[in-house]
Amino acid sequence: MNTPRSNDASDMLVVKVGGSAGVDLDAVCADVAAMVHDGVPLVLVHGGSARTNEVATALGHPPRFVTSPSGFTSRHTDRAALEVFEMVYCGVTNKGIVERLQRAGVDAVGLSGLDGRLWEGPRKKAIKCVEDGKVRVLRDSYTGRVEKVDTGLLRLLLDAGRVPVLTPPACSFDGEAINVDGDRAAAATAAALGARALLILSNIPGLLVDLNDHSTLRPTLTRRDLDDPAALAEGRMRIKLLAAAEALDGGVARVVIGDSRGDGPVRAALDGAGTHIVSEAAA
Amino acid sequence: MNTPRSNDASDMLVVKVGGSAGVDLDAVCADVAAMVHDGVPLVLVHGGSARTNEVATALGHPPRFVTSPSGFTSRHTDRAALEVFEMVYCGVTNKGIVERLQRAGVDAVGLSGLDGRLWEGPRKKAIKCVEDGKVRVLRDSYTGRVEKVDTGLLRLLLDAGRVPVLTPPACSFDGEAINVDGDRAAAATAAALGARALLILSNIPGLLVDLNDHSTLRPTLTRRDLDDPAALAEGRMRIKLLAAAEALDGGVARVVIGDSRGDGPVRAALDGAGTHIVSEAAA
Repeated sequence: MNTPRSNDASDMLVVKVGGSAGVDLDAVCADVAAMVHDGVPLVLVHGGSARTNEVATALGHPPRFVTSPSGFTSRHTDRAALEVFEMVYCGVTNKGIVERLQRAGVDAVGLSGLDGRLWEGPRKKAIKCVEDGKVRVLRDSYTGRVEKVDTGLLRLLLDAGRVPVLTPPACSFDGEAINVDGDRAAAATAAALGARALLILSNIPGLLVDLNDHSTLRPTLTRRDLDDPAALAEGRMRIKLLAAAEALDGGVARVVIGDSRGDGPVRAALDGAGTHIVSEAAA
Repeated sequence: MNTPRSNDASDMLVVKVGGSAGVDLDAVCADVAAMVHDGVPLVLVHGGSARTNEVATALGHPPRFVTSPSGFTSRHTDRAALEVFEMVYCGVTNKGIVERLQRAGVDAVGLSGLDGRLWEGPRKKAIKCVEDGKVRVLRDSYTGRVEKVDTGLLRLLLDAGRVPVLTPPACSFDGEAINVDGDRAAAATAAALGARALLILSNIPGLLVDLNDHSTLRPTLTRRDLDDPAALAEGRMRIKLLAAAEALDGGVARVVIGDSRGDGPVRAALDGAGTHIVSEAAA
């Protein structure tokens, strides 16, 4: 087992790896292990969306997605959906990542945001959504957002040479499990830890002007560009840009939206691949 | 959040709650919360068998049980079964228990034996089983047993006022997830922590001479009675007796095989309900 050489805020890296189809967990875990062996203090955050959809459908609870009046699409999480969500995110995905890292000699510890109330925030019981052009209110939603990160538990583990592997759900202020966006939870974690960078890795090269043309990758953006995410992107990418803005506003110097695929995806993102977003001062 | 008053070995309690149909997780969690608020240092271990069978069947991988030549029945865990096992044990069951405890004001942290290699031991790739009176060898089995418990990680959490909630799988010496028996893993944990007692709570009142007659409960046994478990019980109960013997041999003063159902099941077991098993010296 390797102990990170330093847990200084200035060295800390938060890596978020998505859960869409095509995301390469093997490549990310191998690269994370290499970096941990090199002494980089690191927290890994992950998703599990594609597999959750498969399992939910197989179990007779097909996923339901809703679009908010402001245009963000998210999973509608009632109690049955929450349980399937926990099965995939906290169960097979989290433990599969911990297993990959343990096999590579990294002392990973997998936790959800419920554990130790690591990620805490308000539950939004009633959510507005747009269906057939009309605004409706859905109740019994187990969703919310992260307002508080328990850095005490994270530092306890990091100082003991362990690598936290974090996943939604989070914990509501009333102690309920709530589905939260993984990218934004990773941003809150990076900000709370004073990380030097947040890497958001998924199944695309970065922010593309034309989704079908990889040569239209935007290599750099500044915080000001994120003031109007709708002008830059649609769907999931808009939430990634929102997360990036939250991380930068929380003091993280650099956010990279990059690719999980290929050799050494974590180092590649640090070394310039993907879309790098920095504050105006750093640009 | 309450901090246990003491983590002295002499105060430590390990409570195992099973995963069979009828087990009352609500009652156990409420009682665990009351005890933690009273300052009792405690580790909770749980199963998830019945729900795993349901989910595995719904996902098209119905459970397969095998009987060893020595008469013990266990789940055959190939890789597909292991993933469903993780979904239920580490996913919905572990997080459901953590959620119950967090709602009751207990700072629970849910971990599998993979996390931080908390439970480590040898994987048994090839297992012998008896089918139609013949001994066969099954390969690709992800099973094993716990030989090492990382008390460092448990004490780190306990000393910080957190309550560990532990579940299989464990971690093989090669870093693979392995299905291990939860009762025996709880016994190894109680022994490693020097716990004063191990409570194994499920859906029966204790060891019954006649399974259909609750008046045949054996209120007390000594370690010597466990030398021949087959003379006392069949099936799952034989594994509980084996776990009890291992805990006593590891220095735990008292093992209680008791009921998870009813009000205050943890206190009831401590106060004399169920089957109490002690070493000869204590009898």
